[in-house]
Amino acid sequence: MPIYKAPLRDMHFALWEAAGAAALRALPGMEEIGADLATPVLEGAAAFCEEVLVALNRTGDEEGCVLENGAVRTPRGFAEAYRAYREGGWPALACDTAFGGQGLPKIVSVMFEEMICSANLAFGRYPGLTHGVYSALRAHGTGAQKALYLPKLVDGSWAGTMCLTEPHCGTDLGLLRTRAEPARDGSYRITGTKIFISAGEHDLTENIVHLVLARLADAPGGSRGISLFLVPKFIPDAQGNPGARNAVAAGALEHKMGIKASATCVMNFDGATGWLVGAPNKGLAAMFTMMNEARLSVGIQGLGLAEVSYQNAVAYARERLQGRRLGGAAAPDKPADPILAHPDVRRMLLTMRAWIEGSRMLAARTALAIDIAAHDPDPARAQAAGDEGALMTPIVKALFSDMGWEMTALGMQVLGGHGYIREWAMEQFVRDARIAQIYEGTNGVQALDLVGRKMPAHGGRALRRFFHPLSEWTAARAGRPEIAEFVEPLAKAFGRLQGLTAELARRGLADPFEAGAGASEYLRLFGLVALAREWAHAAQIALPRQEEAFYRAKLATARFFFRHILPQHTGLAASIVAGGAELRAFADADF
Amino acid sequence: MPIYKAPLRDMHFALWEAAGAAALRALPGMEEIGADLATPVLEGAAAFCEEVLVALNRTGDEEGCVLENGAVRTPRGFAEAYRAYREGGWPALACDTAFGGQGLPKIVSVMFEEMICSANLAFGRYPGLTHGVYSALRAHGTGAQKALYLPKLVDGSWAGTMCLTEPHCGTDLGLLRTRAEPARDGSYRITGTKIFISAGEHDLTENIVHLVLARLADAPGGSRGISLFLVPKFIPDAQGNPGARNAVAAGALEHKMGIKASATCVMNFDGATGWLVGAPNKGLAAMFTMMNEARLSVGIQGLGLAEVSYQNAVAYARERLQGRRLGGAAAPDKPADPILAHPDVRRMLLTMRAWIEGSRMLAARTALAIDIAAHDPDPARAQAAGDEGALMTPIVKALFSDMGWEMTALGMQVLGGHGYIREWAMEQFVRDARIAQIYEGTNGVQALDLVGRKMPAHGGRALRRFFHPLSEWTAARAGRPEIAEFVEPLAKAFGRLQGLTAELARRGLADPFEAGAGASEYLRLFGLVALAREWAHAAQIALPRQEEAFYRAKLATARFFFRHILPQHTGLAASIVAGGAELRAFADADF
Repeated sequence: MPIYKAPLRDMHFALWEAAGAAALRALPGMEEIGADLATPVLEGAAAFCEEVLVALNRTGDEEGCVLENGAVRTPRGFAEAYRAYREGGWPALACDTAFGGQGLPKIVSVMFEEMICSANLAFGRYPGLTHGVYSALRAHGTGAQKALYLPKLVDGSWAGTMCLTEPHCGTDLGLLRTRAEPARDGSYRITGTKIFISAGEHDLTENIVHLVLARLADAPGGSRGISLFLVPKFIPDAQGNPGARNAVAAGALEHKMGIKASATCVMNFDGATGWLVGAPNKGLAAMFTMMNEARLSVGIQGLGLAEVSYQNAVAYARERLQGRRLGGAAAPDKPADPILAHPDVRRMLLTMRAWIEGSRMLAARTALAIDIAAHDPDPARAQAAGDEGALMTPIVKALFSDMGWEMTALGMQVLGGHGYIREWAMEQFVRDARIAQIYEGTNGVQALDLVGRKMPAHGGRALRRFFHPLSEWTAARAGRPEIAEFVEPLAKAFGRLQGLTAELARRGLADPFEAGAGASEYLRLFGLVALAREWAHAAQIALPRQEEAFYRAKLATARFFFRHILPQHTGLAASIVAGGAELRAFADADF
Repeated sequence: MPIYKAPLRDMHFALWEAAGAAALRALPGMEEIGADLATPVLEGAAAFCEEVLVALNRTGDEEGCVLENGAVRTPRGFAEAYRAYREGGWPALACDTAFGGQGLPKIVSVMFEEMICSANLAFGRYPGLTHGVYSALRAHGTGAQKALYLPKLVDGSWAGTMCLTEPHCGTDLGLLRTRAEPARDGSYRITGTKIFISAGEHDLTENIVHLVLARLADAPGGSRGISLFLVPKFIPDAQGNPGARNAVAAGALEHKMGIKASATCVMNFDGATGWLVGAPNKGLAAMFTMMNEARLSVGIQGLGLAEVSYQNAVAYARERLQGRRLGGAAAPDKPADPILAHPDVRRMLLTMRAWIEGSRMLAARTALAIDIAAHDPDPARAQAAGDEGALMTPIVKALFSDMGWEMTALGMQVLGGHGYIREWAMEQFVRDARIAQIYEGTNGVQALDLVGRKMPAHGGRALRRFFHPLSEWTAARAGRPEIAEFVEPLAKAFGRLQGLTAELARRGLADPFEAGAGASEYLRLFGLVALAREWAHAAQIALPRQEEAFYRAKLATARFFFRHILPQHTGLAASIVAGGAELRAFADADF
């Protein structure tokens, strides 16, 4: 069985040393938030993940879910684990105290999310979207809807789903066909088929609240004619308890590459009763409240899986004896050296570390921006933080999910043939990681969101939230020899990013196809610069603390990042500069 | 069900236009070899793969193999497909006519191998190692062994395996414990456990011939004390027919990430009767005859899977309607454009094409070198070609298998959520591709083979087989404006490779750890330059033929490679130059 210990020390570093999350204390309602409060919470979260969830990860993958007579049976142990999750109060962590929540900020919940993804991603998919449903209802629901649904979502007795995709439409929601007809009592009858619905049906909660995109009869065509509806599996009775069964049911389970213990359902709505959430035809905007939150969480999935893969790769590399270290035996008393001694194995492990710890710092910083946006009473500061969160969301989603895929594959490689067999779970981490590049908008869609929406919005206002502070940071440190090895390559890569941003904007104005041609590589380059900023900052923190092993490792990892990973930006830049000429010139028939 | 059509036109280009395989005709025994002979053979191979193997790929993955009472049952249809494979004479393709083979060269069989890997990699694993056993016995067996075993291997009635790995030793065969005790009749009793044995046991052939590495009682320790034994499942009787059951049996089947229809066995040798192949304690050298051949084939697996993934991604991209093309609708009469119109989808597909077609050219050139080495009566020319084959083997193995993994993942991404569900098979290609980076020596081991063995051997003789012709080729084309867009970046990347080769050799002499630190990235860089050579050559062929769509597509793909893929070499170069300082500085305890 794979091992997992939550990386609490590094989470502490990312939150309180690197991101500077103590700044939250200055905001109303956040006065109590600090490491002293958060650490015990995260320790409790770690215990839950390590003791309850890890053990169900392999068995859940092997068993999968079963659909019988419309009911989904989750793998053995999942129901008990969910009960423990509820009893621990974990669903309420980042929810409003007005609805029974604990009122903790995103900076804390994001670290808990990482742990769940490390321990058992498939389990995490059940409560995973409930918080999104909570957020969407809280932002767009009526007072009655909030009073009825939010306490149930917050205490975890009910779960939530997002029902967007249909067989013929995923990315292009303008094509969707599910329709909503008004009933006399103010509710609607929802009819249509939704696919790829995570946790669409299961046996963990007493009710399931579907948020469904559908079209009213008189709605305009395309994406401007989509409304959002709340469709509970059981219609709440007068006391707010689950009452009559609604006309929504799981028609099939998908058989997937990974997250097999997560029930991915085809959901049939057959005149199901639903209630409008927000204004008619404004459903996409309301859904985006949920979607942005979900996108960040999907990025965290990549981080969590990379972390658990790393831990298991290291454990194997310490134990497995094979060959002799080049340049001199590491364990001459043993029949062979641990493979940890081999340079190529160390390269793989340090590559993983550099991506993982860099991503964790960026996750902490982004979560902090989201918290500030939600709590800062100063509108300008709140807007600035909101811009930063919005800008970084597609980057975190795509960069981290790509990273999760690449790093779990690297972790598996450390185990050689043992990585390919199911017993060790390393291949499960890879299969589980693969979905994050696809769902909640493929990574290509994230790149278009960055280049086509976030970049140009408000005359590039969001970009400036990243560019200006970074310009100031590097300028303030120019010519300081002790950190020049970090600041100089960061400034250089950042200059490249700035130049390419202007270039891509210019080309995109002339022909939007050109912006699309470079979007994915631009996002990756942006992500590398964002990680370089984190690592330069971390190096500065670590440099004066070299008597402690933690900071020595941090500094060495920073150096590895700058010398071995950041240089990838040059190839990306060359490809972006080359533009879309070949993509355009190649004839459709010739593919 | 996935589609597959063998890319016969591009195989023709790779063999006869790019690699210039017609040169073979000048060699004794090869006078008949040309496109006119090879094309019908490859058309027949294509028909077999398309009509018989493709249909069994998904079902084989879902069913897997079953071990009952020591016997392995392959998935439904595999036995019939194997019979058709035998009846078609396919096992004999590249075997000596003296033993019933067809005497066709590697350049033909390598293309057939690619097709099998595209159509059904797991099926291909059954006959896959038989040819290696044939080659090892032909090179090292006694006359009696050859007469008894080779005709059976050539007609496919018997299959072969390679038994190297043990639970505690894979890469480091010096640790192996399986022992061989001489019997009075000149045979040996083999005892030990081997793991990860592809096709170790199955129901496709009447006998299975295991080649087993084991240790004689008086053998020196480590890798110099390993001998090679032939251990048949059924001991041939006086007539050469399968006789008494030998004491070798499958103890378990591995449950793997992919190639699930391939029986990967734990093999228990319990005093099994075996016969020495070659000289005592020279088993590793004899096994390397087989291993080098197998390594090339493993590279081809990546190529075959990338090709079939590409074909299915294109088919989906043509059909799936979603969104509108940036910069103007492509199909204004439809509700949305085919996703083939989107720049990011075209980027993914052209990336796949550039890697796949470049690799196919390199495969053809490498196979030609192997054929020349085997058939050229001039020792100097044969040695030169053999050097080229030896040099390129680890590069093809690692580069192509990495490519297979990366490109199947890209093909899957084109399908979005539909790529992640099993129904479409795109995720199977990814899972099947993953093993090629691991078996027959992990890709890290290939990199060490390149840097530690192939590079320094005979004072760098093998390297010069690559460097000198390429220097001449680029020098002869310097200053020719019509191909400057290819020759100049090729010359630049090649210059970088030459510089880094010298640098890595210098550092490796001072400290072998340094050579190991840069080995994987050096191999990748070498591979990129080798592909750039192929693409520059292809562009030169295609340039004057732009009235034909095939050559227009070839030229556009060449441009894509040079502008969007080759630039990755700069990041690799920077990382290699940075060396192993961080790998060395990082304390073991800090991982």
